[in-house]
Amino acid sequence: MTAPAPIADSTLAREARNQADEPQSHVARFGRDEPLMMDCGTALAPWQLAYQTYGTLNADRTNAILVCHALTGDQHVANDHPVTGKPGWWTSFVGPGRPLDTDRFFVVCANVIGGCMGSTGPASTNPDTGAPWGLDFPLVTIRDMVRAQAMLMSRLGVEDLFCVAGGSMGGMQVLEWAALYPHRVFAAMPIAASARHSAQNIAFHEVGRQAVMADPDWRGGRYLEEGARPRKGLAVARMGAHVTYLSESALHRKFGRRFQGRDAPTFSFDADFQIESYLRHQGITFVERFDANSYLYVTRAMDYFDLADEHGGKLADAFRGTRSRFFVMSFTSDWLFPTEESRAVVRALNAAGASVSFVEVESDKGHDAFLLDEPDMFAAAKGFIDGAAAARGI
Amino acid sequence: MTAPAPIADSTLAREARNQADEPQSHVARFGRDEPLMMDCGTALAPWQLAYQTYGTLNADRTNAILVCHALTGDQHVANDHPVTGKPGWWTSFVGPGRPLDTDRFFVVCANVIGGCMGSTGPASTNPDTGAPWGLDFPLVTIRDMVRAQAMLMSRLGVEDLFCVAGGSMGGMQVLEWAALYPHRVFAAMPIAASARHSAQNIAFHEVGRQAVMADPDWRGGRYLEEGARPRKGLAVARMGAHVTYLSESALHRKFGRRFQGRDAPTFSFDADFQIESYLRHQGITFVERFDANSYLYVTRAMDYFDLADEHGGKLADAFRGTRSRFFVMSFTSDWLFPTEESRAVVRALNAAGASVSFVEVESDKGHDAFLLDEPDMFAAAKGFIDGAAAARGI
Repeated sequence: MTAPAPIADSTLAREARNQADEPQSHVARFGRDEPLMMDCGTALAPWQLAYQTYGTLNADRTNAILVCHALTGDQHVANDHPVTGKPGWWTSFVGPGRPLDTDRFFVVCANVIGGCMGSTGPASTNPDTGAPWGLDFPLVTIRDMVRAQAMLMSRLGVEDLFCVAGGSMGGMQVLEWAALYPHRVFAAMPIAASARHSAQNIAFHEVGRQAVMADPDWRGGRYLEEGARPRKGLAVARMGAHVTYLSESALHRKFGRRFQGRDAPTFSFDADFQIESYLRHQGITFVERFDANSYLYVTRAMDYFDLADEHGGKLADAFRGTRSRFFVMSFTSDWLFPTEESRAVVRALNAAGASVSFVEVESDKGHDAFLLDEPDMFAAAKGFIDGAAAARGI
Repeated sequence: MTAPAPIADSTLAREARNQADEPQSHVARFGRDEPLMMDCGTALAPWQLAYQTYGTLNADRTNAILVCHALTGDQHVANDHPVTGKPGWWTSFVGPGRPLDTDRFFVVCANVIGGCMGSTGPASTNPDTGAPWGLDFPLVTIRDMVRAQAMLMSRLGVEDLFCVAGGSMGGMQVLEWAALYPHRVFAAMPIAASARHSAQNIAFHEVGRQAVMADPDWRGGRYLEEGARPRKGLAVARMGAHVTYLSESALHRKFGRRFQGRDAPTFSFDADFQIESYLRHQGITFVERFDANSYLYVTRAMDYFDLADEHGGKLADAFRGTRSRFFVMSFTSDWLFPTEESRAVVRALNAAGASVSFVEVESDKGHDAFLLDEPDMFAAAKGFIDGAAAARGI
């Protein structure tokens, strides 16, 4: 199977309230007869996932890899982003000769349900009202994201995944995949992730949500209908979150206390320090590509994630009887998803008798290390993938 | 000397735009002939500091201790707060039988210049316009705060301080006191502090400032004149900052992933988790007692603080020739002002040949540990103070 041609949908395009409704990628549509059964009790229909593919599915359909994206990622893993024009978010990991080698594997990545790059989410049109869903969109969980991806993979003719891989929220999805569809996952690679969102991480997310909701242009979530956008609030949320993705040492190395374009303070509230200028830029550019309500929904999905709780309180029970092989990776300077979280996953996998390897990569780049150039990470991931491929005979 | 009676100023009270202008504490006023010479080049006059005192100055005037408050603290160290009605912020440390024993010492604490509890700041009236200063107030530095305190202490007849003590931003002031007025400081106790604000800390502060400025009710800083208050923006800033004051383990112990008043998620954006409810409460209560522009000014002062930079780039030169004795304290779980920052201060003091003791207190309470019940901290501080008092013969 090669990548299908993008499908145009003039109806959807007409109704689109923002660029997210016109995905420059493939779209899998599910009608009223194929609802997404969600944890909140809603049967969502119709719905759709926007996705990208790279490489070719082999004749045995045994070489498919699903990549799961993080909070503000999307399906554009290894192609230039249609909105920003920048390279995909994981070109270091996915491509010819990369650990997820598109010369060997058929790589799929879908925008999560609740997202804003073409998958159904709060910015999509509610078919019952003709208006954007806004806060009427049902709350999404990590498990809902995975259920949606499973239906997509079936649609693509892939019942058995060679590998599911992802970092941060993507890693949460990997763990959920292994727990929910163990028979469909040959290998699982959760990176810089955890089996439950910590109190501190919930706290940071809540601050971001409050920043969005504090913006009067959020309009109680109805900003699309009212022609507004809560840009300032979303930018503040992004700035705050961005600080948590980096380590103090990375910030010190990149910016230190250096002033922006001068040697001394201005004694004003201008962006005196380079770090201030950098953060403001991060906030401003983010709002051009991301929907504020999607930000609320996807952060909430992470907060709700607690894989042990889904299995009677015992994390090992989430993986009982699994035959998947696991490769867990963390980074020394990641204080948002610290190594201890990965160790808890590894302990549970060991208790469940699973095959698991674990690597803590020495890096000073913080949580975002999984997106950056980390040769040790590439080498370790490539070793795991190549070994798994040999075991599967591909 | 006993504490002077509070001074009423009906003119100031009339002009007051908020409760901060009517301090329920003593006020030291400095006229046009006693300007505060500020780092930004401004000679501020007239100006005032609101302050509290506890205990009695001895006949030799050798038993005065200056306590320096943190970012959102104020002069109400050991008495009930006039706005919130809650106990003072350091009753654990200051009082009869406490490490800073008010039966033995004369303890003074002043609201910093730029603050909002009665000291001159952006909410005060600009005498040239009759309107609140707003952003026309000159930018403040830690050194300016210390210069103002030094003038206050002279006004109170105290040229030599037995001790200067404080945590966080208060600890920055302690270090600045020791560097700027070494002959006036017998003992210095900086707690959970650093000699320069880190890139990560500047970043968190900038997010908070942007949250305030994103609130349309901030009105470009002119909210007092326009009868508005940027409550939502300031609440978001406080929520974000509050997360940084606690450790993940403290958050986990206090809140974990527990839901608020129920067993399961609501699948909504209500405060589902206890930590969310707690943070929202922190934000809401903070805006009742703090001025938004003061928040901008005082965070900025911390960002600008770089004691080494004030001394040609070498921190040891800030303390060269000092005869003060130092006691530096940090907390194991403080990731905002980690122990490494205190170690850098200790190394510089050692290089300068200063007398210095250092204790890293084992605590899981994060940066806020210095405000909380930490017996090891009390014991260590009391030991230092008692030893210094014996050395000074008081």
